Amino acid sequence: MEVKEIELKGHIIDSFILPKVFDTIMDMGGEFDVTEFIIGKKKTETSYARILIKGKDRDHLDNILGELIKIGAAIPEIEEAQLSPSPKDRTLPDNFYSTTNHQTFVRLEGDWVRVGGQEMDLVIVVDREKKKATCQPMSDIKKGDLVVVGKMGIRVEPPERPRGYSIFEFMGSRVSSEKPTDSLIEDIAKEILKIRKEGGKVLVVAGPAIVHTGAQPHLAEMIKKGFVDVLFAGNGFGVHDIEYGLYGTSLGVDIKTGRPAEGGHRHHLYAINEVMKAGGVKALVESGRLNGGVMYECVKNNLPFVLAGSIRDDGPLPEVITDVIEAQREMRKHLRGVELVLMLSTLLHSVAVGNLLSSRVKTIFVDINPANVIKLSDRGTGQALGVITDVGTFLPLLRSKLREMSN
Amino acid sequence: MEVKEIELKGHIIDSFILPKVFDTIMDMGGEFDVTEFIIGKKKTETSYARILIKGKDRDHLDNILGELIKIGAAIPEIEEAQLSPSPKDRTLPDNFYSTTNHQTFVRLEGDWVRVGGQEMDLVIVVDREKKKATCQPMSDIKKGDLVVVGKMGIRVEPPERPRGYSIFEFMGSRVSSEKPTDSLIEDIAKEILKIRKEGGKVLVVAGPAIVHTGAQPHLAEMIKKGFVDVLFAGNGFGVHDIEYGLYGTSLGVDIKTGRPAEGGHRHHLYAINEVMKAGGVKALVESGRLNGGVMYECVKNNLPFVLAGSIRDDGPLPEVITDVIEAQREMRKHLRGVELVLMLSTLLHSVAVGNLLSSRVKTIFVDINPANVIKLSDRGTGQALGVITDVGTFLPLLRSKLREMSN
Amino acid sequence: MEVKEIELKGHIIDSFILPKVFDTIMDMGGEFDVTEFIIGKKKTETSYARILIKGKDRDHLDNILGELIKIGAAIPEIEEAQLSPSPKDRTLPDNFYSTTNHQTFVRLEGDWVRVGGQEMDLVIVVDREKKKATCQPMSDIKKGDLVVVGKMGIRVEPPERPRGYSIFEFMGSRVSSEKPTDSLIEDIAKEILKIRKEGGKVLVVAGPAIVHTGAQPHLAEMIKKGFVDVLFAGNGFGVHDIEYGLYGTSLGVDIKTGRPAEGGHRHHLYAINEVMKAGGVKALVESGRLNGGVMYECVKNNLPFVLAGSIRDDGPLPEVITDVIEAQREMRKHLRGVELVLMLSTLLHSVAVGNLLSSRVKTIFVDINPANVIKLSDRGTGQALGVITDVGTFLPLLRSKLREMSN
Amino acid sequence: MEVKEIELKGHIIDSFILPKVFDTIMDMGGEFDVTEFIIGKKKTETSYARILIKGKDRDHLDNILGELIKIGAAIPEIEEAQLSPSPKDRTLPDNFYSTTNHQTFVRLEGDWVRVGGQEMDLVIVVDREKKKATCQPMSDIKKGDLVVVGKMGIRVEPPERPRGYSIFEFMGSRVSSEKPTDSLIEDIAKEILKIRKEGGKVLVVAGPAIVHTGAQPHLAEMIKKGFVDVLFAGNGFGVHDIEYGLYGTSLGVDIKTGRPAEGGHRHHLYAINEVMKAGGVKALVESGRLNGGVMYECVKNNLPFVLAGSIRDDGPLPEVITDVIEAQREMRKHLRGVELVLMLSTLLHSVAVGNLLSSRVKTIFVDINPANVIKLSDRGTGQALGVITDVGTFLPLLRSKLREMSN
Repeated sequence: MEVKEIELKGHIIDSFILPKVFDTIMDMGGEFDVTEFIIGKKKTETSYARILIKGKDRDHLDNILGELIKIGAAIPEIEEAQLSPSPKDRTLPDNFYSTTNHQTFVRLEGDWVRVGGQEMDLVIVVDREKKKATCQPMSDIKKGDLVVVGKMGIRVEPPERPRGYSIFEFMGSRVSSEKPTDSLIEDIAKEILKIRKEGGKVLVVAGPAIVHTGAQPHLAEMIKKGFVDVLFAGNGFGVHDIEYGLYGTSLGVDIKTGRPAEGGHRHHLYAINEVMKAGGVKALVESGRLNGGVMYECVKNNLPFVLAGSIRDDGPLPEVITDVIEAQREMRKHLRGVELVLMLSTLLHSVAVGNLLSSRVKTIFVDINPANVIKLSDRGTGQALGVITDVGTFLPLLRSKLREMSN
Repeated sequence: MEVKEIELKGHIIDSFILPKVFDTIMDMGGEFDVTEFIIGKKKTETSYARILIKGKDRDHLDNILGELIKIGAAIPEIEEAQLSPSPKDRTLPDNFYSTTNHQTFVRLEGDWVRVGGQEMDLVIVVDREKKKATCQPMSDIKKGDLVVVGKMGIRVEPPERPRGYSIFEFMGSRVSSEKPTDSLIEDIAKEILKIRKEGGKVLVVAGPAIVHTGAQPHLAEMIKKGFVDVLFAGNGFGVHDIEYGLYGTSLGVDIKTGRPAEGGHRHHLYAINEVMKAGGVKALVESGRLNGGVMYECVKNNLPFVLAGSIRDDGPLPEVITDVIEAQREMRKHLRGVELVLMLSTLLHSVAVGNLLSSRVKTIFVDINPANVIKLSDRGTGQALGVITDVGTFLPLLRSKLREMSN
Repeated sequence: MEVKEIELKGHIIDSFILPKVFDTIMDMGGEFDVTEFIIGKKKTETSYARILIKGKDRDHLDNILGELIKIGAAIPEIEEAQLSPSPKDRTLPDNFYSTTNHQTFVRLEGDWVRVGGQEMDLVIVVDREKKKATCQPMSDIKKGDLVVVGKMGIRVEPPERPRGYSIFEFMGSRVSSEKPTDSLIEDIAKEILKIRKEGGKVLVVAGPAIVHTGAQPHLAEMIKKGFVDVLFAGNGFGVHDIEYGLYGTSLGVDIKTGRPAEGGHRHHLYAINEVMKAGGVKALVESGRLNGGVMYECVKNNLPFVLAGSIRDDGPLPEVITDVIEAQREMRKHLRGVELVLMLSTLLHSVAVGNLLSSRVKTIFVDINPANVIKLSDRGTGQALGVITDVGTFLPLLRSKLREMSN
Repeated sequence: MEVKEIELKGHIIDSFILPKVFDTIMDMGGEFDVTEFIIGKKKTETSYARILIKGKDRDHLDNILGELIKIGAAIPEIEEAQLSPSPKDRTLPDNFYSTTNHQTFVRLEGDWVRVGGQEMDLVIVVDREKKKATCQPMSDIKKGDLVVVGKMGIRVEPPERPRGYSIFEFMGSRVSSEKPTDSLIEDIAKEILKIRKEGGKVLVVAGPAIVHTGAQPHLAEMIKKGFVDVLFAGNGFGVHDIEYGLYGTSLGVDIKTGRPAEGGHRHHLYAINEVMKAGGVKALVESGRLNGGVMYECVKNNLPFVLAGSIRDDGPLPEVITDVIEAQREMRKHLRGVELVLMLSTLLHSVAVGNLLSSRVKTIFVDINPANVIKLSDRGTGQALGVITDVGTFLPLLRSKLREMSN
C-alpha cells in the first residue's frame, strides 16, 4: 500500500470538488482517510480538507493522484514541478503532463507560477530563465523545450460555484429544448452587455445555418452595433454570407421567399468567383460590389475574423486558412481578452474553439440538436450553456433584446 | 398470366401518379402495356392513360390492383362495389377494403358515390337505402353493417400538384432545419388568414412544450383574436397552461426568469387540485380564479376543445376524456370544416389527429426534432409541412406576423 | 428572519446530498450555518451534519425546507406528520405534500412509518387505525381520506452512491451515443441474471419499433427462456407483433426482405380483425392460428401483460385497456417485486411507467434518440440508464449475451 | 416571349425526369407545349419527348433551361459547347457552367465528349487539342484554362430507375430508424460482395465513433479479409484507433469494460506521442509496437489511406494532410474505380467525400442521427442510402454477414 496526502481548499462542497474526489477514489478502487476537515459554516466561508489517499502500489496511487490533481487537489508537501526536455520537434518526453482547461499553476523555484494560455490537452512548457510557464500544443514543440512531467508541483484551480444564481449552470447545463426561450435569450443579452461593459471581448463562432435560416442580417446588425469583437467561421459561412449579399440567396434558396431562386444553384460558386475576381473579401467590400452582411460589417468595422478551412470546402475564399494547424494558431492569437463566446449552429467549429478556451470563459452554444450539445460537453467544453433552439429565430430575438436593453 | 386494364386521368405526370404506377408495378414484379396515352400538352391540360396490368396469377394481379387503386388508378369496366355484412360488432368481413386518406368514391347502383368522413385505415360502410357511404373505424362497426370488400367499384382521388407554387410541397416536405424561418412563418400566417377568409376552420393541436418554452401567451392571444377555431390537447397541456395561469410556472419553472420557482415542483399538482375544487376548467374560469392562458381564452371565447387522456397523466383534469376511443370519437366531431391544422410540438397527438384527417386538409407540423416529422409522415400524414424549429420562438413570431397582416 | 435546524446523515458528501443542500439554499436566496459536522473518515463511514437554515420569513423558510426534505434533509425536532381530510372525491386538502420517487417515511404517533407504494407526484394517505401510510394518486382519493399536509414529520431517503462501481450511474447517466455498446449490453445482461437470481422481477416496456426493426423474435425468445416476468405495451406493439406472426410484416413491410409486402398496407388492420374474430389475443393463440411472437409467448408462458390504449390506436385489440387511468391502475398492480425495468423504444410508455416506479428500481431505457433519454430524466425518472442505440441491433445482442451467460 | 425546344429520352417517366421537368417549369413560372411524345409501352421500352419551353424573356428562358439541363434535358438543335478562358489562376470566366454529380457530356467539334472525373459543383475544362473535357475544382484552375460557359452543347445523364428492386432507392432514401435492420445489413453485405466480384473497389470513410463504440476490431477484420480497398478518415479516427491498439481505450474509456481507465484521459495524447516518436503510423507498425486495429491492418495489407486534417485536431499524426485543399486532391486520386462507399458515422467527412463522387457510385451512410442523413442529402449526395443505426452494433453484424456469405 502506498499513501500520499492531498489538500483541498475553497468552496469544495457545493462546487462538487470534495464529492468528486471521493467519487474518483472509489471508482478507481482506492481508499481514503480524512485527516483534517474544517467546514465553511456560512455561504461565504470556504472549507478545508486534508485526505490521505491509499493506492495498491506506486502506479495505482500515481494514477489516482493524477486524476485528483485535475479535479483540484493539491499535494501539500511542496515539491518542484518536474521538467524534461523534448527529444525532438513535435514530440514529447515520456510521462508528460497533459492539461485540463482549468487554470493551472506550477511550482518553480519555490513559487507557484501561473500557466499562461490555459487550454485543455496541451502540455506545459517552462522557460526557466524567465520563470514562465505556458500551455503549448504538441505541434509547436521544439526539440529541447522543457516540458512538465509527472504529477509533482502542479496545482489546478477548477471553477467554483458562484455564490448567487447564474445562467451558466455550474454542473453543466441540463440539455433540454423545453426551457423558456424568451427569458433565456434575455439573460444572454444581459451577459453580453455586462461583459462588454467590464471590458471583456465577445467572440462569435458562426455556422452557415445562420445564413440558410435567414438570421444573417441580425448578426450583421449586432456587429455593426458593436456587440461582437471577433468572428470565427469557416469557408461555408463566408461564402453563403457573401452569396446572400450578392444574390439574396443561400445555397440557392431565396431567403425572402424561402423558394429556390432561378439559377440559384450556381450562386455560391458565382459568389466565390466574384471574391476571386476582386482578390479577396476585403477587396470585394472596398470595390463597393458587396453592400451588406456579416463579412461586410467585419471589414467595415475592422473586426478581426478568422476563416478556417475544412475538407468539404468549395473554392475556398482567399482569406480562408486552408492549413488547419495554422488556423488553430491564428484563432489562438485572437482569444486574448475574450470573456464570452457565442457558438452559433456549428458543431465542428465549436468543439475546435472549445478546445482553445480556458474553462473560465463563458460559453453559449446554440444548436437545434441536443445531441450536439452533449458532444461539445463530452469533448471537454463542459462549461458551455447549451441552448436548444433554432438559430433562425434565436438571433432576431437576441438582437431585439440587445437593442432594447442598450437604449 | 392474368391481365386487367386500368385508367388514369388528370395531371398524372407532374402529380407523380403515372411514375408511381409504373414504379409500383415494377416493384411488385408485374408487367404493363400502355394501350392508350394522351399527354396534356400545356400546363393546364390533363393527361389520360389506359394501361394493361399483368400479374403472374389472379392473386398477384389483385395485389397489384389493390396498390394501384390507392394511387389513383380506376378500373374502367364499371363494376359495382362489392359489399359484405359484418359478422359481429367491432369485426369486419374478410377481404374488407381499408381506406387511404385520399377522397374515395364507391360505385353504387351505377353511380359514383362520394365517401363521407374520409380518413386513413378505416373501412367504408354503405347505407343502401340512402345510397350513402361513410368511413367508419372498426370500433364503431355493428353486426350486419355493409362493408366494402375487394377492389371493384372503388375510385381514389389523390391530390394533384397545384399549378402554381405552394408551401405545402407536393411530394412531401423535405425535412430540414436549414430553411429561412422568417419567410416560412410569414407564408404560414398568410395561409391562416386566407383559409379563415374563405370560411375554413383552423385547428390547433397543442403540446405542453408551448407552455414550458414560454410561448403560451402568444397562443392565447391568437385564440383571443379569433385565429383559432378548435383546440385539441392532452391533460399535460391543460395542466401546465393552468399552472402557468395560477402560479407563473410550468413544471415548476418560473417562465419569467427561467429558474425553478420556490416550491414550484408542487405547482402542477396544486393546479390540478384547484381545478378539482372548482369542479372543472370552465368552473375555475367562471370563478374568476384563473385570469389568462389558452384554456382561459377557450372558455371565454366559447372555443370548443377536446382534452384527451394518456397513460402518463397526473390528475387528470375533469374535462379530460380518459377513454381513448371515446376521445377519438369526440375529436372526429370537431373536424367538420377544418381546413388547416397547426400541430405544435406533440408527436403522439399529431399522429392521432393526422390519422383522422383527409389528405386535402392543410397540415403544418412544428417540432424541433426532424425525426418526429419523419415519423408523422411514415404514419401516413404525408401532406404535412414539417417546420423544424423551436415552438418557443415560432409562436411569438407567428403571432406578430398575424397581427401585422390582419391590420 | 426565520430559522430552523435540519439534519443530514449517511454518505451525504459523495451521494451529493450535502452539496445539493447548500446549492438549494443558495439558489433560493437563503442562508445557512453549519452547527455540527462529522465527516466519514473512510469509504464505509457515514457523515453527519446539522445545519441552521435561515429564510427571510416563514413562507420563504417553509419553501426552502420543502425542497430540502425532498433531497433528504430531516427536521430533528420530532413532530408528528400533519394530516388533513380530503374535502371531496378526487380532490386534496390545501397544502398537501406531494411525493418524490424516493422512499419516504412519515411520523405517526412517535414512529417513523414507511410509506407503501412509493411513486412520484402522489400524495400520502394515512390509515390511522392500522398506522399505515400509502402513496395514492389524486384520481383514487375519496372524500375524507387523511392526507399528509405541510412539511413536518416527513423523511425522505434518497438513494446513496454505491460504494463500488455500477452501470447505474449515480448522478444520472451522461447521454451519449459514443459508448462501447458491446460492453454495455454485457453489463445489462449481467444485471438481468443477477436480479433474477435474487428473486427480483424483470419488467419489459415494449414499443412497436421492436417489431419494425425486426428484433421481435429476440424478445419473444427472451420471454420463452424466462428472462422476463411482466410485459407492458400499447395497442400498436400488440398489433404489429401479431401482424408479424400472421403475415411476416410490420406496418406492411416484409421483415425478412425489408421491402413492402404485396398488399401489406392492409395487414395491420387484417391482424386486428383476426383477433376480433377469435375474440381476443389469448383466444387467437389458443385457436392455433398465431404461432409465434411476443404476445404468443406471453400467453403460452402465462406472462402477465398490460396493453394500454392511446389516442392513435387502430382497433384496438380487445385486451387493450382504453381508459388510461384504469390502465395506470392495472400497471401498478404488476409492479410489486419488479427490480429491473427494460424500456425499449417507447417514450410515452416509458415516462408513464417511470412515474409509477420507486427510484430504487433499476431502469434501463433503450432509444436511438438522445433527446428522449433527456425527456425521461426531465420527467423525474433520473435513475434511468440511457442506452442510445438501435433496438433492432440491441435485442439480438442482448439475447445472445443472455444465452451465453446463462449456460 | 422566348421559346426553345428540349428533348428527353429514356425511362423518363418512372425515373421522375419528365415530372421534374414539368415541375421545374411550373415552379419557375414558365410555360410548355409538348410537341412530340412517344411513351415506352412496356417496362423495358424507353420514352421520348420534345417540349417547347417558354420564358418571359431571354434571361428567364435561360434560367429555366439551365435547370432543365441539370435534370437531363437536351437541346436538340446541336450547338457546340461554349468555351471561355480563365482570366487568372483560381478564377473563372463569367457565366461558367457548374456541374452536377451526374455524368455529363459536352459537344466539341460535332461530337459528344464524356466529361472525366465527374463531381458536383466543379467546372468543365476543355483541352481542345486532345478533345478532352474534365471536371476541375476552382482551386486548380490556371489562367487561360478553357472553361465551359453558358448552356449550349451540354448534356447530363441523370441516373435511371433500375428496372428491378434495389436497396439504393431511386428517389432518395426515406429516412427512418424503424426499418428491419438485420435484412438491411444483409442487403449491404450482398452489395459489397457483388461489387468486389465485379472488380469494383470499396471505400470506407471512418469516423471516431467506430472506436468509441467498440466496433473497431470488426472494421479491422473486414480490412484484413479484403473487403475494403481504400480508407478515408481524419486525425481523430487515426488517433483513437491507435490509442485503442496501444492502451485498450478510446478517449480514455476502457472499451472492454466501458469504464474510464486509470489515467486514461492522457491516452490519446500519449498515443500521438508514440507515433511521433516512431516517426509515423507506418513506422510504429513496423516497429512492432502496434499490433492491431484499422490503421495497423491498412499498413500490413498495403491499403491506401488518406487522413485529412480538421481544425479540432490534437497532434496531428504525421500522416495527416493538414492542408484541406491538398487533402481533397489526395482523396480524388483514390476514387478511381471506387464503386461503393461505406460512410460510417462521420458527417463532415461524408459530405466532403460525397462532393467528390459521381452520382452513380453506390453510397451507404450509417449514422445514429436522422438529421445527419438529411444534411448529407441536402448537400447533394442524394444517392446515399441512409441507415439510421448504431455503428457500434452495425459493424459486428455486417462483418458476421460478410463472413457467412463469403464462405
